[in-house]
Amino acid sequence: MASTHTKAVFRGAGLARARVRVRVQRVVACAPDVAHANTAATHPTAFIHPTASVHPSANVQAGAVVLEGAVIGARVVIGANSIVGEDVQVGEDTHMSFGVRLSNCKVGRRCVFHHGVCIGQDGFGFYFDEDAGRMVKVPQELGVIIGDDVELGANTCVDCGSRRDTVIGNGCKLDNMVQVGHNAQLGENCILCAHVALGGSSSLGERVVMGGKSAVADHVTVAPHSRIAAKAGVIKDIEVPGNDHGGFPATKATLWRKQVAILRRLVARGGVTSESL
Amino acid sequence: MASTHTKAVFRGAGLARARVRVRVQRVVACAPDVAHANTAATHPTAFIHPTASVHPSANVQAGAVVLEGAVIGARVVIGANSIVGEDVQVGEDTHMSFGVRLSNCKVGRRCVFHHGVCIGQDGFGFYFDEDAGRMVKVPQELGVIIGDDVELGANTCVDCGSRRDTVIGNGCKLDNMVQVGHNAQLGENCILCAHVALGGSSSLGERVVMGGKSAVADHVTVAPHSRIAAKAGVIKDIEVPGNDHGGFPATKATLWRKQVAILRRLVARGGVTSESL
Amino acid sequence: MASTHTKAVFRGAGLARARVRVRVQRVVACAPDVAHANTAATHPTAFIHPTASVHPSANVQAGAVVLEGAVIGARVVIGANSIVGEDVQVGEDTHMSFGVRLSNCKVGRRCVFHHGVCIGQDGFGFYFDEDAGRMVKVPQELGVIIGDDVELGANTCVDCGSRRDTVIGNGCKLDNMVQVGHNAQLGENCILCAHVALGGSSSLGERVVMGGKSAVADHVTVAPHSRIAAKAGVIKDIEVPGNDHGGFPATKATLWRKQVAILRRLVARGGVTSESL
Repeated sequence: MASTHTKAVFRGAGLARARVRVRVQRVVACAPDVAHANTAATHPTAFIHPTASVHPSANVQAGAVVLEGAVIGARVVIGANSIVGEDVQVGEDTHMSFGVRLSNCKVGRRCVFHHGVCIGQDGFGFYFDEDAGRMVKVPQELGVIIGDDVELGANTCVDCGSRRDTVIGNGCKLDNMVQVGHNAQLGENCILCAHVALGGSSSLGERVVMGGKSAVADHVTVAPHSRIAAKAGVIKDIEVPGNDHGGFPATKATLWRKQVAILRRLVARGGVTSESL
Repeated sequence: MASTHTKAVFRGAGLARARVRVRVQRVVACAPDVAHANTAATHPTAFIHPTASVHPSANVQAGAVVLEGAVIGARVVIGANSIVGEDVQVGEDTHMSFGVRLSNCKVGRRCVFHHGVCIGQDGFGFYFDEDAGRMVKVPQELGVIIGDDVELGANTCVDCGSRRDTVIGNGCKLDNMVQVGHNAQLGENCILCAHVALGGSSSLGERVVMGGKSAVADHVTVAPHSRIAAKAGVIKDIEVPGNDHGGFPATKATLWRKQVAILRRLVARGGVTSESL
Repeated sequence: MASTHTKAVFRGAGLARARVRVRVQRVVACAPDVAHANTAATHPTAFIHPTASVHPSANVQAGAVVLEGAVIGARVVIGANSIVGEDVQVGEDTHMSFGVRLSNCKVGRRCVFHHGVCIGQDGFGFYFDEDAGRMVKVPQELGVIIGDDVELGANTCVDCGSRRDTVIGNGCKLDNMVQVGHNAQLGENCILCAHVALGGSSSLGERVVMGGKSAVADHVTVAPHSRIAAKAGVIKDIEVPGNDHGGFPATKATLWRKQVAILRRLVARGGVTSESL
């Protein structure tokens, strides 16, 4: 992606508080060929805010919405009823299917977002204030940076950052209903199967592969080229690159398979009578 | 929340059968300061049904839809392409992001619903009628009551009730893609991380915390102040408050950790040869 | 369902490439009583493409979108802000709630799709081309066939096929946020609880029941009348019909329960001291 920097967006904890929107000249400089809305390829039922910049070659489909200050690159497709939020930037040739929702993010080129993708909503940070006797929300005021050639599956969710921008590296491919927590960092070309979850502030090195329903806990780092088995749960850093891990808590896959085998043999040896143990 | 009572909405099992909608005077009495649509803050591409009541200070964004009989309180934000279904009531200062869908529910004040939240769809109740040779649907005709200060993550789903209203207590915070089954009851100030699932008719006491991908089975009750580890599955009632639980089937966390340790030691002691067992 | 054949739709890997749409006469022949848009029951804020065929008795709600060549049967309800994509066929009496997105599919009669259902998006097939140094997408160009009387829960996702159409048999009931991978085949009357995932090219026989968060791996077949426990992960074919399975990797439920019992007894017998092992 072109930049690892995004603007801070100050968001209220639930109410429509005033937002400080830092529209910078850089944005326009990065996309010199944008034109102002509405283009010929904008469907009559779509809405584009007058302050948004939409390239004339973009295709804004029926019912789509492009809000204040958004910048849409060449040949971008914004699918029916999709929404591009305030100040979101979308790189050229990116394709959104139906009902995609983008907020607080900068998206690279040639990305594919399938139906219902959600980007940039608040991360999940709360604590209970014992003195006040109520829940308190930790501010979630940063953004999401999506690299080039990223594909996100249907209904996948990527939260905005709280202490650093959430980053999805170039070439990453995420299946349906994947959860990416706030501040997570994905290296290039990772593959995350359906129902994977990445905890807040977790990090994946490049080319990590995660099987379906596997997860990485908050603040945990996974070394490059690791492969995580389906349903595994990684709760400690994986520091050595290139190994397979499985189970919960996840261990090296060889050890995990032995755990499975031992349990089976214990059962085969006579079940649960105290004598056999 | 102001009331634990909601109207019954009779819904057909799949077809667009007639609905008996019980519009009661009470609704208006609870929200005396509502005005009739459309207000100045309604986007021209939004649709508000003439029978809906929308407070003049509410903000109805582009492409949003407010259907028959809905009541929208002061300063509510209905995000772009969000939908407020028939007779839904939304308390003041509640904020919906993009593409939220509300049906069969009453929502409290100061709630935050992130992109794609789904509330009030039918619960999951079916059985196979051997005589008829086909699946039969159990009626799902009640509603959902959301308290004050509730936050629901992106694409999270809360089903309507079948034998009692589904209830989410004041101050609950749910992360992305959480599943709340029909009739579930959440006490105040619970925290549910991403991909949590609550089975039908389950109950959580106040201030229960559930880690990512953990679950509670149908009809199971969890005592207040319990903490459920990530990926755990609770299949029996937790009766004593304030303990940590983990594993599947979930046990006290101390026991679960010992199970993990024993398996690892068995492997370390020599693996899977029959001699070592 | 009437046919196990669907047209191939050639879809670009992310960009809005030209689509070869094979509109066949058969489509019209299957639905002889359709009329051309817009009908009296079409909401003024809905959009129906002039080439779509919508039965006069259908109900197209506010903000809904029906795209080129779609065929909508009698008494179908297309909920607010739902989208029926190009050439999609929807059988009579099918009911979609709010924000449903259909693409590349043929849907039977009397189905129920709850809020946010996603059908027909690309399956998940990628590999890393070491020579080129980048990810390559496997074409995902086929469709989805949904039988009669199918119910899909909120935000559930069904991917299109790559080597055969994805098929959901008559009478199947899927709960919320279920993942159905490309090429999967579901026999009639299966029940899949919330957060279930079916891997690519997996197959379920008729009347398989899967508990919450359970999964079937890619290319694995499950025999008819099998019951899969919550959170189980099936990674090998289940060949004998009618048994219960649980755990991960899944085994027969009787064995799985013994594994659980043995671990508990090992802990009860003295914990993790080396002597007790």
